[in-house]
Amino acid sequence: MARVVCITLNPALDLAFNLDALTLGHVNRPTGAQLEAAGKGVNVARVLASLGHEVIVSGFLGEENDAPFSLAFPRYGVEDAFVRVPGNTRINAKLAEQSGRVTDINGPGMPIEASHLAALRTTLSGLFESSAPPQAVVVAGSLPPGIDQPTFGELLTFVKGFRVPLWVDTSGPALLTAIAAQPAAVKPNETELADWAGSALDSDQQRQAAAKRLHASGIEHALISAGAEGVLWVSQHGTWQSTPPTVTATNTVCAGDTFVAGMLHGLLSQHSPEETLRFATALSSEAVRHVGVGTSHADDFDSLQQQTRVRRLDDTHTEGATR
Amino acid sequence: MARVVCITLNPALDLAFNLDALTLGHVNRPTGAQLEAAGKGVNVARVLASLGHEVIVSGFLGEENDAPFSLAFPRYGVEDAFVRVPGNTRINAKLAEQSGRVTDINGPGMPIEASHLAALRTTLSGLFESSAPPQAVVVAGSLPPGIDQPTFGELLTFVKGFRVPLWVDTSGPALLTAIAAQPAAVKPNETELADWAGSALDSDQQRQAAAKRLHASGIEHALISAGAEGVLWVSQHGTWQSTPPTVTATNTVCAGDTFVAGMLHGLLSQHSPEETLRFATALSSEAVRHVGVGTSHADDFDSLQQQTRVRRLDDTHTEGATR
Repeated sequence: MARVVCITLNPALDLAFNLDALTLGHVNRPTGAQLEAAGKGVNVARVLASLGHEVIVSGFLGEENDAPFSLAFPRYGVEDAFVRVPGNTRINAKLAEQSGRVTDINGPGMPIEASHLAALRTTLSGLFESSAPPQAVVVAGSLPPGIDQPTFGELLTFVKGFRVPLWVDTSGPALLTAIAAQPAAVKPNETELADWAGSALDSDQQRQAAAKRLHASGIEHALISAGAEGVLWVSQHGTWQSTPPTVTATNTVCAGDTFVAGMLHGLLSQHSPEETLRFATALSSEAVRHVGVGTSHADDFDSLQQQTRVRRLDDTHTEGATR
Repeated sequence: MARVVCITLNPALDLAFNLDALTLGHVNRPTGAQLEAAGKGVNVARVLASLGHEVIVSGFLGEENDAPFSLAFPRYGVEDAFVRVPGNTRINAKLAEQSGRVTDINGPGMPIEASHLAALRTTLSGLFESSAPPQAVVVAGSLPPGIDQPTFGELLTFVKGFRVPLWVDTSGPALLTAIAAQPAAVKPNETELADWAGSALDSDQQRQAAAKRLHASGIEHALISAGAEGVLWVSQHGTWQSTPPTVTATNTVCAGDTFVAGMLHGLLSQHSPEETLRFATALSSEAVRHVGVGTSHADDFDSLQQQTRVRRLDDTHTEGATR
C-alpha cells in the first residue's frame, strides 16, 4: 500500500436541502437538510483510504467553519494537513425539489493570499522531508480566488519537484495550465480534450488521435472520460478503452473522483493495465448508484467488474509512448 | 452592571446569499455569501454585553458546526456556556435577489434529547452555584425538535427556581407555555396577545385591558410590541406607552431582541420607568436602520431618544399591580 497526498485548493461545504417544492419569495421548510465536507481531492482521498492506502489531505480550509472537515477526516481515515486560512470555506447549497428539479447556489471561494500558498508549500515540503514521504500527489478540483493560472502552474511545478507522480483532475483553463505543467495524469472529458486539441472530435478515431497527442505531449496517463460511454486511456501500456456496466445512475457527483482513485490504486499496486482499468471503471459505476464515493465492498462489486468491458485498441505501443 | 444568562434553545447559522436573480433548475453564482452565528438569545446577549453587562450565553449547539459561534462569542464579549450536542446546528438560508425578492429556507432544528436537557440544567446550576451568580435569565427564540411544550414548561420552572428574574421572548404555543409558567417578563405582539386573550383586540382600550390582564395573571412586565407603532408596557410602575421615532427600516430582524435587552438593562440598572422605556424603544429603532442589533454608540442616539415619545397612560397603579 502507498502513501498519497490529495490536495483540494478550493474545497466546499455542501449544504443540501430537500424540499417538496421551492416557493420563491416565501419561507420554505425543507423536509431535510444535510451539511457535508466536500471537495474533489477529499473524495479521491476517501476512496484511496478505503482501499488501504495511507492518505494525507491538504489544501486550504477556512478556519471559521472547518469543524465539519476536522470531524469528517478521522471518519474517512485520512490525515489532516490542510492549511487553515482566515474566513469561511465556501458553501454550495443544493435545493432539491420533489419534482426532480435541482437548483444550485455555489458560493464564492475564499481568497487565497501569497502567505497561504507559502504555508501550503511548507506543509508539503514537510511531508516529503518526513521519514515516510508520499509516493504520489493528487491535485483535484477548481481554483479559489487568488490562485490564477500562472500561480497554479508554479504550484504544480513545485509539486513535481518532489519527483513522485502528480495526478491533476481539474477543468477549464486550470486543466490547460495543468497539461502544460506535464503531470503524470490528467482526466479531461471529451469536450475538454477537444478544447485542448483545438478542433471538434467527432469520431472515435479523432478522439483516440487527440488522446494519443495528449499522451505524447508529456502526460504519462491521458485519461479521457465520457461518462456512461466509458473511458479512453493512453499510456505506455497502449490505448485502452473501458465500457462500464449499465447501472441506474442516482448521483454522478463522485464518479470521476472515484475513477481517479481507482486508477491510481491499480497503478500504485502494480496491477496489470487491464485489471487497473476494469477495477477503476467498475468502482466508478458503483459510485453513480448512490450519493458519495464508490466502494469495492459493495456486495455485487465482483459482478460489476465482470460486466465492465475492457479492451485494448492497439496491439503496439502508442505513438506517444514510442517517441 | 449585572451578570445575565441568555439562553437560546434553537440557534441557527444564518447563510445569506445575494444573487442578481435566482434561476431555478440551474447553477447560480451569488455575488456574495455570508455565514453568521444567529439566535435570539445571542442577539439579546450582544446588546447587553455592549451595554456593559457580564453576559453568559447558553442553550444547545451542534458540535459539528459550532465554530462560527465559538469564534463570534469572544467578539461579542460574551461567555460561552452552550451545551454541545451531536450533529449540526440548523442552517437558515436566505436567498436575496436584486429585485428585492427574498426566499427563505429554514432548516429543521437539531433534535434535543433528555440527556442534553439534563446537561443544560447542570450547566445552569453550575452558573448559579458559582461565586458570581447571574442576576437575570433570558430565554429567547423557538423550541427545537425534542422540546415539547410540557418539557419547555418544566425547564422554565427549573430556571425560576434560581429566584432571579426570568424573561422569556418566544412565540406561538411556546409563548402560551411561557405565560403559564409566570416569568418576570414576556413580549407578545398584538396578535399573540389576542391569541392569549381569546378575543380580537380592535381598540386601544381592548389592548390595554388585555395587557393589564396579562400582567395580573402573574407577569411582572407585560410588554406588548406593535413594531413601528411602539410598545405597551404594564408593570407595577403602571401602564406606559412608547412611540419610536420615524426611521428608515432596513432590517427589523434584531429589533425585538434589542428592545428586550434595552428594557432589561434599564430595570437591572434601576433607571426610571420612563428612562427605561425611552432607551429601549430608541435602541430598537436604531437597530432597524441596519442589519444586526442596535447600538447606543450611534452618533445620533441621543437624538433618537429625544424623538422617542413615552407617556404614562394611567396615573394610578394598574389593576394587576394592586391585586
